[in-house]
Amino acid sequence: MSELRVVYLSGGVGGARLLEGLARALPAASLTAIVNIGDDFEHLGLSICPDIDTVLYTLSGLADLKRGWGLRDESFRALELVSRYGGESWFQLGDMDLGTHLMRTQWLSEGHSLTTITQRFARALDVGCSVLPMSNDRLRTRIETAHEGTLSFQDWLVRRRGVPQVVGVTFEGTARPSPEVLQALARADLLIIGPSNPYVSIDPILSMPDVRTAIAKLKVVAVSPIVGGRAVKGPLADMIPTLAKRSASAGAVAAHYGSLLSGMVVELGDEPSVHDLPVEGTATIMRTADDRLRLAQAVLQFAERISRTPGT
Amino acid sequence: MSELRVVYLSGGVGGARLLEGLARALPAASLTAIVNIGDDFEHLGLSICPDIDTVLYTLSGLADLKRGWGLRDESFRALELVSRYGGESWFQLGDMDLGTHLMRTQWLSEGHSLTTITQRFARALDVGCSVLPMSNDRLRTRIETAHEGTLSFQDWLVRRRGVPQVVGVTFEGTARPSPEVLQALARADLLIIGPSNPYVSIDPILSMPDVRTAIAKLKVVAVSPIVGGRAVKGPLADMIPTLAKRSASAGAVAAHYGSLLSGMVVELGDEPSVHDLPVEGTATIMRTADDRLRLAQAVLQFAERISRTPGT
Repeated sequence: MSELRVVYLSGGVGGARLLEGLARALPAASLTAIVNIGDDFEHLGLSICPDIDTVLYTLSGLADLKRGWGLRDESFRALELVSRYGGESWFQLGDMDLGTHLMRTQWLSEGHSLTTITQRFARALDVGCSVLPMSNDRLRTRIETAHEGTLSFQDWLVRRRGVPQVVGVTFEGTARPSPEVLQALARADLLIIGPSNPYVSIDPILSMPDVRTAIAKLKVVAVSPIVGGRAVKGPLADMIPTLAKRSASAGAVAAHYGSLLSGMVVELGDEPSVHDLPVEGTATIMRTADDRLRLAQAVLQFAERISRTPGT
Repeated sequence: MSELRVVYLSGGVGGARLLEGLARALPAASLTAIVNIGDDFEHLGLSICPDIDTVLYTLSGLADLKRGWGLRDESFRALELVSRYGGESWFQLGDMDLGTHLMRTQWLSEGHSLTTITQRFARALDVGCSVLPMSNDRLRTRIETAHEGTLSFQDWLVRRRGVPQVVGVTFEGTARPSPEVLQALARADLLIIGPSNPYVSIDPILSMPDVRTAIAKLKVVAVSPIVGGRAVKGPLADMIPTLAKRSASAGAVAAHYGSLLSGMVVELGDEPSVHDLPVEGTATIMRTADDRLRLAQAVLQFAERISRTPGT
C-alpha cells in the first residue's frame, strides 16, 4: 500500500475525522488532502478558513473532537473583550485559534499564497500528510434562502445557526485549482470524497472545471455523510429534499455525485438506497480514534476491490 | 474642588497610576487625560496603542499593576501559536488584550477616529473620566541610538529591551491635537504632567504647537519620574545624561520642561535638585491604591497653593 497515492476531498468536521484515520492508515507521502475554501470569510479584520483549520487541528491532534469544532482546552478571552466593546461575537473565535488567523492574515497581506501559508501551518503543527487549499483564488459559498434572501455561508450556518431554509447554493468568484492541487490529482491512484456536505463542502472543489477533468480519470470513492436518512452533523439532511427533490439518503448523495463515482461507502443498512454502483456497508460514525482508523481501512480496502468506473 | 477642571498628560505605567489616583480624588467630569501616541505601532496587522491601553486598563481596574503592564490574569495562548508558526513573539500580546487591538483595528479601518474609539473603550470599561489620545493623526517616536542607527520606539524598548544607548529622540509625522484635546485645554484650570518619561512620553504631546500655546496660559505642575537619581521604571535615568548633558535628577526633569512649569512635585529629599521653581517633596512611589490617591491629593493641594507662573 506504500505505493498508492490517495487524494482526499474534505470539508470540515466529518471530512477531517476520516482524513485523520487515513493519515494513520497510509504513509504521509501517500496522502494529499484538498480542502474546501468556500466557507472562508473575513471577520474582525482576520482571514478565517474554517475547513482548513479544522483539518489542520484534527490532523495535529489539537482539535476538540468532543465539541466538534475548534481547539481542545481553548479559551475565549479575546472574544469576551470584543463582546464587552460591542463587537461581533457570534463567531466563536478562540484565543489559540486567533494565533492562526493573525498569522494567516499577516502572511496573506505580505503576498504569500494560501497554499504556502497552509503548508507552513502544517509543518509547524507536525502534520505529516499534504494539506492543500483547493485554490489560491477566492471563492465564496452563498446560500439562497427561502425567506431571508442570499446569505454568506458563515452568516447562514453560524450566525443564523443554519435555520433559514436553503433553496439554492451558489459560488461567488472564479477559482482555479493551484498547481499543487493539479499535480496531486495527476499523480493520484485513488480519490476519496470525505463524508462532508456535498453541496457546501465538496461542490466548491468540484466546481472547478480542471478538477472535474482530472477526477474523471480516477477511481473515486465517496463516503456518505448521511446515515439512516440523517446527517451525522450539520444541516445536510434538510437541504437534500429542497435541492435534490428527494428524501435524504446515502443514495441521494451518490446520485448527486453521479457518474463521478466508482463506488460508495455507506452506513450498514443504507446499502439499498444506492443504485447502479458498487457499495460497501460499514460502521461510518466516527466517535473514537479507532473508529476513524477502522473506517479509513475499510474505505481503502473497498477501493482496492472495485475497479475504476467514473465517466461511465 | 468640584469646579476645578484638570487636564493630565500621561504616558504609560507611571502616568497611568497617578491618573488612577486623580480619578478617585476628583469628580469624573473634572478630569481629562491626554495620552501619548508616540509609542503606537502596527504588529501582526493590529493597531496597538500601548499608552492608551495602559491608561484604560489602569483606570478600569483591569491592569496588572504588579507586573507593570497588561491585564490582570492575562493569558498568552494566541501568542503561543503565533510563536509556534514562527511569527513575531517579542511583543507580549495577551489574549484579552487582543480583543482591544482587534476592535481598534477594525474600527480604524471603518474610518472612526482614534478619539472616538478610545471613548468607546472607556465607556465599555466603565472609565469615568475623559481619556483622549493626544491626536487623531499619526506620530511615531523614533529612537536614535549610538551604535544601532534609528529604531522605532517598540523595537528599541521591547525588542531590544531599551539596551541600545539613546543619543536622540525624534518624532515622525505631523500631528495636530484633536478638537477634544484643544477644548479640554481651553477649559482647564490646571495641567498636571504625570511622572512619565519626558522625552518619549510627554514630549510627543508637547511637540504639537497648538498644545504648547494652550498650555502657556495654564498653571502647570509636573510630578518627577526620577526618584533619588533613578527612574522608578524604564530607561529614563540612562537617557538624561546623554540627552540633557547632566546627571539624572528631578531637577533635570524640571529643567527639561523649563518655563512651562508653575511647580514640581518630587520625592522627599529630592527638593534641592530643583531650582527657581516652587517644589513639593512627598512620597511619589505608588505601590498601592492608597499611595496613588495620596499622591494625587498632594499634587492637587500643592497646585492649589502655588500661583500660575508659566511663560515667565
